[in-house]
Amino acid sequence: MRLGTAEHHDGAAVVVRVSDAEAVVLPGYHDVSDAIAEPGWRDAAADALRGGDRVPISELSWLPPVRRPGKVLCVALNNSSNADRIMRGPSTPAMFVKPSSSLVGHRRPIVVKEKYGRVHPEPELTVVIGRGGSDIPVDDALGHVFGYTIINDLTSPTMRDDDTFHYRAIHPDPGSADGIRYVDSWVSYPARYKGADTFGPLGPWVVTADEIPDPHALRITCVHDGRLVTEDSTANLRFSVAEVVSFASGYLTLEPGDLIAMGTALKRSAKGGAVQNVDLARQGGVIEVTIEGIGTLSNPVERR
Amino acid sequence: MRLGTAEHHDGAAVVVRVSDAEAVVLPGYHDVSDAIAEPGWRDAAADALRGGDRVPISELSWLPPVRRPGKVLCVALNNSSNADRIMRGPSTPAMFVKPSSSLVGHRRPIVVKEKYGRVHPEPELTVVIGRGGSDIPVDDALGHVFGYTIINDLTSPTMRDDDTFHYRAIHPDPGSADGIRYVDSWVSYPARYKGADTFGPLGPWVVTADEIPDPHALRITCVHDGRLVTEDSTANLRFSVAEVVSFASGYLTLEPGDLIAMGTALKRSAKGGAVQNVDLARQGGVIEVTIEGIGTLSNPVERR
Repeated sequence: MRLGTAEHHDGAAVVVRVSDAEAVVLPGYHDVSDAIAEPGWRDAAADALRGGDRVPISELSWLPPVRRPGKVLCVALNNSSNADRIMRGPSTPAMFVKPSSSLVGHRRPIVVKEKYGRVHPEPELTVVIGRGGSDIPVDDALGHVFGYTIINDLTSPTMRDDDTFHYRAIHPDPGSADGIRYVDSWVSYPARYKGADTFGPLGPWVVTADEIPDPHALRITCVHDGRLVTEDSTANLRFSVAEVVSFASGYLTLEPGDLIAMGTALKRSAKGGAVQNVDLARQGGVIEVTIEGIGTLSNPVERR
Repeated sequence: MRLGTAEHHDGAAVVVRVSDAEAVVLPGYHDVSDAIAEPGWRDAAADALRGGDRVPISELSWLPPVRRPGKVLCVALNNSSNADRIMRGPSTPAMFVKPSSSLVGHRRPIVVKEKYGRVHPEPELTVVIGRGGSDIPVDDALGHVFGYTIINDLTSPTMRDDDTFHYRAIHPDPGSADGIRYVDSWVSYPARYKGADTFGPLGPWVVTADEIPDPHALRITCVHDGRLVTEDSTANLRFSVAEVVSFASGYLTLEPGDLIAMGTALKRSAKGGAVQNVDLARQGGVIEVTIEGIGTLSNPVERR
């Protein structure tokens, strides 16, 4: 089943995909998180598919399928094609949090302000948590997944550079209880460079987990103004969905509706180019991310 | 007015402080965010103060005053006493996001798992946003503040080290449209070291902004098991509340109920010691953060 959230009358409604052209409204459900919270949604969806109001997909005004997740965890440096570039890299999944205020729906503009500097797309498989939990064993982890969707994890390398710092961190001095010593450290803070408004296009569909038997065998592409920028596979993800869900839940309790972006597929396509060559601030245009079996997320850039 | 959120019957209720010993329940309000959303709360509070059910404060079972903020923005390296330690530091407020799942109420345990390594407290003034907005001018910024509270921005320097990486970032090659070049870079990811469960004790009270005419003249202390660790003043914050609210809103739309932690007050107290000398993983104990005019946030450590 494929579920989305779209504007409907004065509010929002969950829509269920019928075909490439049509969807039906799921009465009483206003956000995919309502379906996650209510196991009876499948019966309601079956009823809607039989007799519900059909809507042309082309006329939908899309919202992020989960508009206000408790958290959007994003895994960094999780692509095996990265290996040659890493001097000191993660030995466990490295994660940051993107705020829900950065999410936007399919076809909504990505707003790029001049002060952001360079901005590039990052196409990513995204896990939608169904059943929450802490300390989830790897073998149980996929049972906590409601479904999969697509995020374009927009990134400003200019703001990343601006928010990367070199300082002497205070550490305790092993020689005395109150003593301190300085340790040369680098630190970077992602709220702006990963979390600016519209830096999280999400959707359009959440595909339920039963339709994605192997989340690590999906072709993923990123196209800018019709030009293929990235052609990769989720097979290249270093830490798997089960490993990431399990690891993350050992530190941060996962809640229904939480999202986990699995990390950029950034292997360069045979056609050349890298996502970092796409500077949306300078070039504008339309960015499309497609994941096999999930759909295509497309957003125009609006420069301000 | 001082507002908090506490367990009440099978749910939660907003409580209004009457005295050091007593509070009243504000009927119909279940989270301080309900008051933020409903300007009529002051009339309801006046009624409650006249005739509402009194509750001994000592019997309250506290929750975070805002349990599920849209985002918890945290400002890093924002204390002027830091200056001598910074080789390359922020020229604008540096920010990261803490997930709402990390928040816990006053008196709730801070759970420190053995795998976290070292964990230290960070006492911080926290802004509660009342009126949302984007691109808020500095001169208007304080008008968007509903009130102030306290966060203990718990930090694991061990996990920070584990999640700091050195790699060659891909940048476009200025010499060719599809070319790339590598730039030696450091990056760190805060989801674990700042966002683990219970790493965000918050409260107990939100003091409305009218009672804090100058948020930059407040004594702030951190006490571990009765020993004064930090004695500082919000006067030492480098970027002011108005500057941070304005700057942040130029990138991330602020929503009612959003929290902004203003950065650690970490000037060493005259009594010696630094917050980094307190290793809650090894020492356990109770951590208290007090901000003049706002209150005291106290949490015991539970080691697992």
